[in-house]
Amino acid sequence: MNDREFLENIKSGRTSIDDGLDYLKDFNYKEMDFAKLDFQRRQRRGFGEVIFCQDKEDFALVEIYKAFYERKESVLGTRASRHQYEIVKKEISEVEFNEVGRTLLLNFEKEEKVGNIAICTGGTADLKIAEEARVTAEFFGANVSTFYDIGVSGLHRMLSKIDEIKSANVIITIAGMEGALPTVLAGLVNKPIIAVPTSVGYGASLGGITALLTMINSCAEGISVVNIDNGFGASYQAAQINKLIEG
Amino acid sequence: MNDREFLENIKSGRTSIDDGLDYLKDFNYKEMDFAKLDFQRRQRRGFGEVIFCQDKEDFALVEIYKAFYERKESVLGTRASRHQYEIVKKEISEVEFNEVGRTLLLNFEKEEKVGNIAICTGGTADLKIAEEARVTAEFFGANVSTFYDIGVSGLHRMLSKIDEIKSANVIITIAGMEGALPTVLAGLVNKPIIAVPTSVGYGASLGGITALLTMINSCAEGISVVNIDNGFGASYQAAQINKLIEG
Amino acid sequence: MNDREFLENIKSGRTSIDDGLDYLKDFNYKEMDFAKLDFQRRQRRGFGEVIFCQDKEDFALVEIYKAFYERKESVLGTRASRHQYEIVKKEISEVEFNEVGRTLLLNFEKEEKVGNIAICTGGTADLKIAEEARVTAEFFGANVSTFYDIGVSGLHRMLSKIDEIKSANVIITIAGMEGALPTVLAGLVNKPIIAVPTSVGYGASLGGITALLTMINSCAEGISVVNIDNGFGASYQAAQINKLIEG
Amino acid sequence: MNDREFLENIKSGRTSIDDGLDYLKDFNYKEMDFAKLDFQRRQRRGFGEVIFCQDKEDFALVEIYKAFYERKESVLGTRASRHQYEIVKKEISEVEFNEVGRTLLLNFEKEEKVGNIAICTGGTADLKIAEEARVTAEFFGANVSTFYDIGVSGLHRMLSKIDEIKSANVIITIAGMEGALPTVLAGLVNKPIIAVPTSVGYGASLGGITALLTMINSCAEGISVVNIDNGFGASYQAAQINKLIEG
Amino acid sequence: MNDREFLENIKSGRTSIDDGLDYLKDFNYKEMDFAKLDFQRRQRRGFGEVIFCQDKEDFALVEIYKAFYERKESVLGTRASRHQYEIVKKEISEVEFNEVGRTLLLNFEKEEKVGNIAICTGGTADLKIAEEARVTAEFFGANVSTFYDIGVSGLHRMLSKIDEIKSANVIITIAGMEGALPTVLAGLVNKPIIAVPTSVGYGASLGGITALLTMINSCAEGISVVNIDNGFGASYQAAQINKLIEG
Amino acid sequence: MNDREFLENIKSGRTSIDDGLDYLKDFNYKEMDFAKLDFQRRQRRGFGEVIFCQDKEDFALVEIYKAFYERKESVLGTRASRHQYEIVKKEISEVEFNEVGRTLLLNFEKEEKVGNIAICTGGTADLKIAEEARVTAEFFGANVSTFYDIGVSGLHRMLSKIDEIKSANVIITIAGMEGALPTVLAGLVNKPIIAVPTSVGYGASLGGITALLTMINSCAEGISVVNIDNGFGASYQAAQINKLIEG
Amino acid sequence: MNDREFLENIKSGRTSIDDGLDYLKDFNYKEMDFAKLDFQRRQRRGFGEVIFCQDKEDFALVEIYKAFYERKESVLGTRASRHQYEIVKKEISEVEFNEVGRTLLLNFEKEEKVGNIAICTGGTADLKIAEEARVTAEFFGANVSTFYDIGVSGLHRMLSKIDEIKSANVIITIAGMEGALPTVLAGLVNKPIIAVPTSVGYGASLGGITALLTMINSCAEGISVVNIDNGFGASYQAAQINKLIEG
Amino acid sequence: MNDREFLENIKSGRTSIDDGLDYLKDFNYKEMDFAKLDFQRRQRRGFGEVIFCQDKEDFALVEIYKAFYERKESVLGTRASRHQYEIVKKEISEVEFNEVGRTLLLNFEKEEKVGNIAICTGGTADLKIAEEARVTAEFFGANVSTFYDIGVSGLHRMLSKIDEIKSANVIITIAGMEGALPTVLAGLVNKPIIAVPTSVGYGASLGGITALLTMINSCAEGISVVNIDNGFGASYQAAQINKLIEG
Repeated sequence: MNDREFLENIKSGRTSIDDGLDYLKDFNYKEMDFAKLDFQRRQRRGFGEVIFCQDKEDFALVEIYKAFYERKESVLGTRASRHQYEIVKKEISEVEFNEVGRTLLLNFEKEEKVGNIAICTGGTADLKIAEEARVTAEFFGANVSTFYDIGVSGLHRMLSKIDEIKSANVIITIAGMEGALPTVLAGLVNKPIIAVPTSVGYGASLGGITALLTMINSCAEGISVVNIDNGFGASYQAAQINKLIEG
Repeated sequence: MNDREFLENIKSGRTSIDDGLDYLKDFNYKEMDFAKLDFQRRQRRGFGEVIFCQDKEDFALVEIYKAFYERKESVLGTRASRHQYEIVKKEISEVEFNEVGRTLLLNFEKEEKVGNIAICTGGTADLKIAEEARVTAEFFGANVSTFYDIGVSGLHRMLSKIDEIKSANVIITIAGMEGALPTVLAGLVNKPIIAVPTSVGYGASLGGITALLTMINSCAEGISVVNIDNGFGASYQAAQINKLIEG
Repeated sequence: MNDREFLENIKSGRTSIDDGLDYLKDFNYKEMDFAKLDFQRRQRRGFGEVIFCQDKEDFALVEIYKAFYERKESVLGTRASRHQYEIVKKEISEVEFNEVGRTLLLNFEKEEKVGNIAICTGGTADLKIAEEARVTAEFFGANVSTFYDIGVSGLHRMLSKIDEIKSANVIITIAGMEGALPTVLAGLVNKPIIAVPTSVGYGASLGGITALLTMINSCAEGISVVNIDNGFGASYQAAQINKLIEG
Repeated sequence: MNDREFLENIKSGRTSIDDGLDYLKDFNYKEMDFAKLDFQRRQRRGFGEVIFCQDKEDFALVEIYKAFYERKESVLGTRASRHQYEIVKKEISEVEFNEVGRTLLLNFEKEEKVGNIAICTGGTADLKIAEEARVTAEFFGANVSTFYDIGVSGLHRMLSKIDEIKSANVIITIAGMEGALPTVLAGLVNKPIIAVPTSVGYGASLGGITALLTMINSCAEGISVVNIDNGFGASYQAAQINKLIEG
Repeated sequence: MNDREFLENIKSGRTSIDDGLDYLKDFNYKEMDFAKLDFQRRQRRGFGEVIFCQDKEDFALVEIYKAFYERKESVLGTRASRHQYEIVKKEISEVEFNEVGRTLLLNFEKEEKVGNIAICTGGTADLKIAEEARVTAEFFGANVSTFYDIGVSGLHRMLSKIDEIKSANVIITIAGMEGALPTVLAGLVNKPIIAVPTSVGYGASLGGITALLTMINSCAEGISVVNIDNGFGASYQAAQINKLIEG
Repeated sequence: MNDREFLENIKSGRTSIDDGLDYLKDFNYKEMDFAKLDFQRRQRRGFGEVIFCQDKEDFALVEIYKAFYERKESVLGTRASRHQYEIVKKEISEVEFNEVGRTLLLNFEKEEKVGNIAICTGGTADLKIAEEARVTAEFFGANVSTFYDIGVSGLHRMLSKIDEIKSANVIITIAGMEGALPTVLAGLVNKPIIAVPTSVGYGASLGGITALLTMINSCAEGISVVNIDNGFGASYQAAQINKLIEG
Repeated sequence: MNDREFLENIKSGRTSIDDGLDYLKDFNYKEMDFAKLDFQRRQRRGFGEVIFCQDKEDFALVEIYKAFYERKESVLGTRASRHQYEIVKKEISEVEFNEVGRTLLLNFEKEEKVGNIAICTGGTADLKIAEEARVTAEFFGANVSTFYDIGVSGLHRMLSKIDEIKSANVIITIAGMEGALPTVLAGLVNKPIIAVPTSVGYGASLGGITALLTMINSCAEGISVVNIDNGFGASYQAAQINKLIEG
Repeated sequence: MNDREFLENIKSGRTSIDDGLDYLKDFNYKEMDFAKLDFQRRQRRGFGEVIFCQDKEDFALVEIYKAFYERKESVLGTRASRHQYEIVKKEISEVEFNEVGRTLLLNFEKEEKVGNIAICTGGTADLKIAEEARVTAEFFGANVSTFYDIGVSGLHRMLSKIDEIKSANVIITIAGMEGALPTVLAGLVNKPIIAVPTSVGYGASLGGITALLTMINSCAEGISVVNIDNGFGASYQAAQINKLIEG
């Protein structure tokens, strides 16, 4: 039951005033023992709620998805495991799982997508984060173009795609190891770039810290950076900007 | 002499073909011994050239400003010292110096400003970076509103300004020490936030590394981060986004 | 057998002088091969003994609990596993296990609790540490109120609880990722805050180091910090302060 | 003019209603261009306002002190230089400077001090921070006892003072280099200890980071930690606790 | 067959000159494909050979022990697993395994032990390293006294043993977490202290780096430090010094 | 007097046998109180001696240069200050000073240069290190081509030079900030690249550590790295390789 | 089918023009969904393609090897697991697996090897990386000599091999723990040294960071450094240099 | 007046009982406002008192030296500046200053020196620390041999001195940059080595942290380590060991 349905039910008498009052108690936030859910995010912030699934207890995750399901509010789970998908699936058959991107999606409102976000990766090993970013951007209503494995050590791969990349509203670059992708791209395009360092690498890659430092120190202009492996965060901001541009 | 003037001079005969060919040799880039200047940035990238003045040799800095001045191309110097201002001033009286923001501006094209960027600081000690950001954003054609000293340890100061901040296209947050400002703001507004950690603090602030880490790890959505004290970089991207939205 | 019982047994002749001398040899400290137990902590320090269970050998842990059990002295085990609970349980049925908080409690003296400690967490993932803190504070004789999942990225959640939080003697704040919770709270309340960074997060959260640095650098006043994930340590000091206030 | 005087002036007609309204505009916060001053802290938070003087511009510092002086509100400046003292002194002869502790005090309300805070240092080089802490604690209404140069490498020095230290409500320990002082003290006393790492040392002391890590990892109970060299912060919280105990 | 036996066999004709030449080829070093073994260490360096077992391939470890066994040269394996013990045991029944200390000993020369080394630990969790140190010191011919669980947070435990500790030639202190044990001891004794930081702890203990930094920065005199968890290395040097003193 | 001259003097009787013996005492190494000079490096290692001038005492530096001068052996001083140049100049007028590269050269053997080393920098601020590298490579007998200010944020600058760069035997890349230059170059050329991170940058550039990490983690092949700002070290190895190729 | 075969097939009519056009679409790069393969590397860069197998999805790895196999292009996989070997082996029986070096080789062009690269390790635990380096260097056409377990703590082992090591064109040194091997070698030889730090060690070895720092800071000349455990990268550059020398 | 003189004066009546009691008040420790001096160290610990001069206030330093001078107790100041020497010199003409080693010595008891400590440095830049170590060892009664500039990149320099070095009781090795000196020495000698990392170097030497890490991770046996630049600390322990051996 979404908000409109609730009000129509009250109007038509299908829901009594007393039941309505009861319902409104949990209207904005549901206070569970272990969490406070926010069903008004789409209204307030423009985007649906997102749940960080990693380390969530099984029972808690199921309860959370059920609470959204009952209100017919969409929710995107990130860092979800196959196990988590399976336990939620048992209760709610509509959830969609992207195994590479580790997303667990419950999506009711299928608006038309607008604008365009380009997602570029340095190598094939950055795929996980790219898929998390892609699902997120689409959930938040943006068209997405992907340009995978165009790292700077093989410049031709990037140059052959540069016109397509340029035509996006916002560019997300995802790279591990030395993380030079956004710097080179920023010299070639004129759009805001959100850079995602990844934990891909070994030795002195320090679990992604090196790529993060590289990107933060970029001598090129028009780059800002999010946390290591945070494909979700990059797409959230990219989708904000994309939406504002499409206006 | 800007590009239009050059072509009109050729057409009218004021400049001979031979002199024109000579001029065109340095048209795109001037190859100095110590640097390669780019006079076509406004055409290619939409924004004028920017010079990082810190550690530049005196003679080199003067030559660079003179080269731009001769072409009537605007240029923004960042991290400029009063000494540098004075030596350039001797040659080019039009340069403008912002002592707090350490900017050295030569500005020919005074287009109308568009949109709005909100610049918020956590404390008074972040002023330097905020002024660098303000001058940069204005140089790149954006209107700017400033909200200084609204750090999260005194929440009332931020809450009393929140509606004004919300109305900007993009928000720049500048904070040192623990750097919590963007996280709290991001929960209250629905606009992209570019966070600038500053080197303000002592002890375990590690010259701004702590604020950088805080911002990169923000649990709030819609935040991306630039280098410590990089007010210029934040405004560059903010101005890009602002222009695309207004565009 | 606690101290009073021992002395009464001597007085009444139930325990012979020779047996009493024997008993007194181990009175203050029991020297095991692998550890020295302290049965006089409640007398000396006001609080019962605490055992850090992690990495303790099975036989050693059981011996330790049995030694306390024999003297009817209470003991709180922290960082205990279910396996450890089970092996101790076999010998001493009275031990209580809190699986989330990983505590293993043997509690003989049920004094009335005094005062009030508020335990606040930034997110649901900080629950483990919060439960460790709660059990500890109660073991040390304090009343506890919990405020879970009130992180600063959703300020309304915190503001709606602020009057309750304010009324505690001491406030424990538990947060991972960027760790901004204590800073914002400290601006709103006037009570000592003990901040616990947690290892919740990924990428540049550096296993809690980022949250630790954030809290140590807080620009708000009235905050001190304990080790990452050290819910026990925070509650120990909070209980000290609470007791002195109620004094 | 303090608040009571203001209201009495209104009542008696010495201040007109119009002037009163004017005055009230700046009543809670004075919005300067560069800062927002808070004159209501004593009412709201129980303690007077504190200014971090380091890096403040000269004109700004003088304006700030004058604003407090006009309202007869006390203010404590920390990290003040002799130069800053001299420029403020010119305008306001009442300011008191503690050169070792680098404090710049303007104090109108001389309430009786209550309770007792013990300030202990490991070595003579920690004196600066100890003095900052002492002045702060006294400004916030606490009696202070000092125990300087009682570091753990000469245990007799500490043991000879232990009974005096124990009798305080709260203990502040200040130590650089390896920072072991709070751990040893915590095993001997039963009062909350606030530990201040200092930047005293060289080589692998890493500007105080080593002492900070030592204190955060203390195996003793009842210790919490503030930033490196943050004598002010330790005393703020110690004074809070001291007041609550005495309260 | 040790060196003396070899020469006596040649003299007596039990070994032919040709076989002797063959034997001498591998006399000093045995060049295996994967390692170069040193059978002359006792002669050259005074102490027998030591093998770091961790990560050694199974077949290699067995070959190495067999090579020593054939020459009747003693060898001490450190960081050995139970699995490694079992595979070597199959071939050489004389090897002795200390499970806590993870040592795998093949010892032919049982000289009388001399002098005395005191091994002190801060807590029970440092036992592993202490046992590695104890077996090593004894292998290298030193008497050992152990003082376990005498950490500085319970000073009485250390003070009650101080006279025994003082009487050793060299003192090894083993401690994790904040690592303050050697500093306090060094103020009470007048013997060289070799400090071993351990990886015991969590959070900001950084796998022993904090304890290492603490010990390296000790303000007390007469302390030097070895690698984290390097009980072997501490005992090697302690045994060198002990032997020189006993001389 | 170089070695040939010495022997010819002996042969001709210009130097007596006794004087010759005296001379030979210091032939290989001159043992000064504070240093041991090596006059045979050109013979043994192929390249002349190099002195790291930074922090050398004035008298010591002069003595060292005089010792080489007397033997007519060439020596290259690196990290030399203008002051050091002046004090050496007073004694030995032949020394040549490169102020930007901070080299202090005494060069007797002017062999013909061979091969070619390309020295590329990311920005104008890397000039110091580039000049140190250039002087070093030339001292060691290599031809040098320089390509300054061809950083990857303006790809056109690099691409326009790529054929010239490719034709060198070895390529030295010098870059600070995010240090992406060698990665991009390595994808375009097929020659060994020696990468020099520089300390150019601010904030999270960490004095060059970020550029060092970037280069060490490069996903491109054919890159190895030397210390931050170590232009000398890069050229030493480049000259070795260049000579072997030409060899 | 390699390039020559393709063209001969076209010429002979065995392949039709239409099929040829189809083939040429993927000629230079095969664009898979997840990767872009490069079949022209041997032509362009002189060396065959290399695949970093770690973390590659099973299906992707098999597809990649099949794509190379079909074109009869050689490919070297690094960081391959036994499992990966087995799944590729099922499809392509020619692949060769080196379990210690973790390489998965598909090699069609068996040219004669030239020159000589010396691979030296500090200890037996560096074997993995040494084998990766050996296979790589041989794949790229270099002769290899190996000198394992010649660490500097037993100088005799290195000195006995020094003449053989000297005779190589390039020297690769592989060492963990304190990583002093390249420094000592560089003082004894006159050939370029490429140093590989390894993650061998424990405690303060920091997963190889210590060895990396040691090597980067070497006071000896003629050393450059690659990433921790990057045996492949060292051999790539060594093979480049070896080939240029052999010319 | 030393202790013997005091007692003889009492016995002879030169000092009255009342004056004697007065004197005894300050007998063990003099409690100054800013420090607690220890005049009994030679009795208790075997070695005279040592003062860390750096950052001491002028008046305090003079008072301290005067207090020792009055009791005719020796004292060694370390990290003393020329300025400090001059102000103390004015009051006490007997103080001796070593400018390179920065020591300020007041020495009454000139016992005969015993044993032998070898002090070895890697380069000439380590001289400061070596001199601090030399003065300290001699103050504590040890003979000293110095071996300067014998770093491992020129092995011949070390090998030519090895027999002399071997004959010492204890060896102190002082080295910066990559810090490999103790590892190589430890493989050649059979005496305890105390390693001092120095802050000599640049770039990734991290102010001596790299040398410290190298030494702590040494694969050679018989090495322990003190703080960066802590020549005093190394000599203190070396002198302890030397005395015990000679004892």
